[in-house]
Amino acid sequence: MPAPVPDPTSVGLVAPQNVRLFTPDHPLTLARGGRLDHVEVVYETYGRLTPEKDNAVFICHALTGDAHAAGFREGSDKPGWWDNLIGPGKPVDTTKFFVICPNLLGGCQGTTGPGSVNPATGAVYGLDFPILDMADFVTVHRALTAHLGIDRLLAVVGGSLGGMQVLEWALRFPADLANAVIVAASSRLTAENIAFSAVAREAIMRDPGFRGGHYAEAGTSPDMGLSIARMMAHITYLSGEALSAKFGREPQFDGLAPGFGVDFAVESYLHHQAEVFLDRFDALSYLYLSRVMDYFDPFARPGATAAIAEVRPNVLACSFTTDWRFDATHSLRLVARLHGAGVPVTYRSIPSSQGHDSFLMPIPRYHDTIRAFLDRGLAVREGERR
Amino acid sequence: MPAPVPDPTSVGLVAPQNVRLFTPDHPLTLARGGRLDHVEVVYETYGRLTPEKDNAVFICHALTGDAHAAGFREGSDKPGWWDNLIGPGKPVDTTKFFVICPNLLGGCQGTTGPGSVNPATGAVYGLDFPILDMADFVTVHRALTAHLGIDRLLAVVGGSLGGMQVLEWALRFPADLANAVIVAASSRLTAENIAFSAVAREAIMRDPGFRGGHYAEAGTSPDMGLSIARMMAHITYLSGEALSAKFGREPQFDGLAPGFGVDFAVESYLHHQAEVFLDRFDALSYLYLSRVMDYFDPFARPGATAAIAEVRPNVLACSFTTDWRFDATHSLRLVARLHGAGVPVTYRSIPSSQGHDSFLMPIPRYHDTIRAFLDRGLAVREGERR
Repeated sequence: MPAPVPDPTSVGLVAPQNVRLFTPDHPLTLARGGRLDHVEVVYETYGRLTPEKDNAVFICHALTGDAHAAGFREGSDKPGWWDNLIGPGKPVDTTKFFVICPNLLGGCQGTTGPGSVNPATGAVYGLDFPILDMADFVTVHRALTAHLGIDRLLAVVGGSLGGMQVLEWALRFPADLANAVIVAASSRLTAENIAFSAVAREAIMRDPGFRGGHYAEAGTSPDMGLSIARMMAHITYLSGEALSAKFGREPQFDGLAPGFGVDFAVESYLHHQAEVFLDRFDALSYLYLSRVMDYFDPFARPGATAAIAEVRPNVLACSFTTDWRFDATHSLRLVARLHGAGVPVTYRSIPSSQGHDSFLMPIPRYHDTIRAFLDRGLAVREGERR
Repeated sequence: MPAPVPDPTSVGLVAPQNVRLFTPDHPLTLARGGRLDHVEVVYETYGRLTPEKDNAVFICHALTGDAHAAGFREGSDKPGWWDNLIGPGKPVDTTKFFVICPNLLGGCQGTTGPGSVNPATGAVYGLDFPILDMADFVTVHRALTAHLGIDRLLAVVGGSLGGMQVLEWALRFPADLANAVIVAASSRLTAENIAFSAVAREAIMRDPGFRGGHYAEAGTSPDMGLSIARMMAHITYLSGEALSAKFGREPQFDGLAPGFGVDFAVESYLHHQAEVFLDRFDALSYLYLSRVMDYFDPFARPGATAAIAEVRPNVLACSFTTDWRFDATHSLRLVARLHGAGVPVTYRSIPSSQGHDSFLMPIPRYHDTIRAFLDRGLAVREGERR
């Protein structure tokens, strides 16, 4: 039997790494008060860091993402969530870049979060975990970057909540990054955005299994609430057009059989989405991370653009034509603010039928845009080296 | 103390009426099979029927509406849900028209529904209530019309699910009505429409208090699920624009205080919407009535327009520019189908910032359109009388 042909566009087998970035001697002081004495971060890396340590691309994940952005973990045939973007020859080309992707603070895939054990009490934090802020994500990302010995990132890249982290980072510490890619993101959620997230959280918190956040000790879990939250949110991640194209009014089985069970194909799809989500995500992380998005409003800070106006990293912002969760007005607002501060910003509205989730899709014009932007960043670095 | 000045634009004090329309000797045979041996209908009327019985306007309510469309019931200062449209001098002018508005079959405000007691068992129907179809609503409406001694309605008027009833009625029994007003409705839900309704129903049915639909006997109630369903649906009834204008990112209290409680004003609003909804609506009715909408697809029936093409009642269809639940394409589809059958159809796209709920709002251009259409209907009737 011939050996399987390795996929030359995949980063191949990857393994998560783990690092303790904050300790009682060096605690994480949080933006909204409080501190964490123990913070571990799980991350993956792809490609090789140059001896000059000047080819690092930092990936910030979205609300329900994790550190596994590309390649395959041992024993799994599920590629990383941004595998179509990251790999040899791909837009984030791992033959050129050293790519870092951590699980977020407050997440549930290895990095310290509300589902972690509080070393001070020996019990799961639950709602005792401190309220997070976009700035805290950046603080932890910077600590990881420092741990890897990198002074300046060639780029920071993220979509949705990931893009919001990129924006926060670029505004607060623009000297850390030469280039920033902000995809399908927002600098300020609308009332409708907040409303959808609020209902998702209500579904979780009103689930009797939530137990005031102490479901781990109770041995229960708010599966119902998290399922409802996911199904609802999932609709908002897609477009009406995409749902119509994929499912229309098609029956799931031989024909429609009116009743209250799953009958339309789109219903079966939502059930499936909820089920796979329960296996990989935690209700407390959903609360904490989604709430950070609600409060994010960086341009409301006095002097918000003072630092970035000095350093002026290159920024690429993209939105997608059918994204109604964060439509083009969200991207255009942050573009206008950055532009007003003299930052060189490229904005692209990418035609796509896939709604907000477009940022995860291999859309040629989108991928070409990111590739060109990062390659230009590489070329500029070459110039700097000389 | 002077007596309060009566409001000359209100129909004033109204009282619900009750009639048993179907009995074991004259059961209601349902479109999808099964029958109901006992059907009571609660309705209200406003204005006076002419001796010729030719000035009746029938109002069909939406998913969460009821028979109380106008005026005030004894002891309440809450006007009917369409009080801005119906009354002396209003578009549905009760000095000219005799207006009838029943609670829907399957509803929970007096008309027989899944929360009623099944006379055969002495227990609440729950999920033993038969699956309903749009045609069943029309059957019951026609029985009520006959009970009132009316052969032909001057008009049938409805918004959203109400408009879908109007369409069904006009297609199946076009000779019953001279004019039809179909507002913010659809002849076929999209996958996205079905998806939102499916999630709402899941929230209800997964609530432990639902007890497989037997919550009445169990003494529980799926308040959590119904609240989540309502909050989510309510977002879809409004527009992002309306939510931004009304709430923006305003705090509910003195300032934002990050946490998981109600903090943004829009969150407080959603909570309030859920609370008042629990007081007036029933989870089983929500399931039954919303599911009728999912399956409604009248133009898919062979010969769907054969009857209406013969009779050709006048049809007015309206949509609202910011309605994203049933956007203009929904109205335009049914308009095109009716137009193709030779039916005289007037279509108006009404500018409004209020989303789907616009059909409940006193928008001048909308009200003027309905007024003109009904007045023309009156004028035509005058011509017929001569």
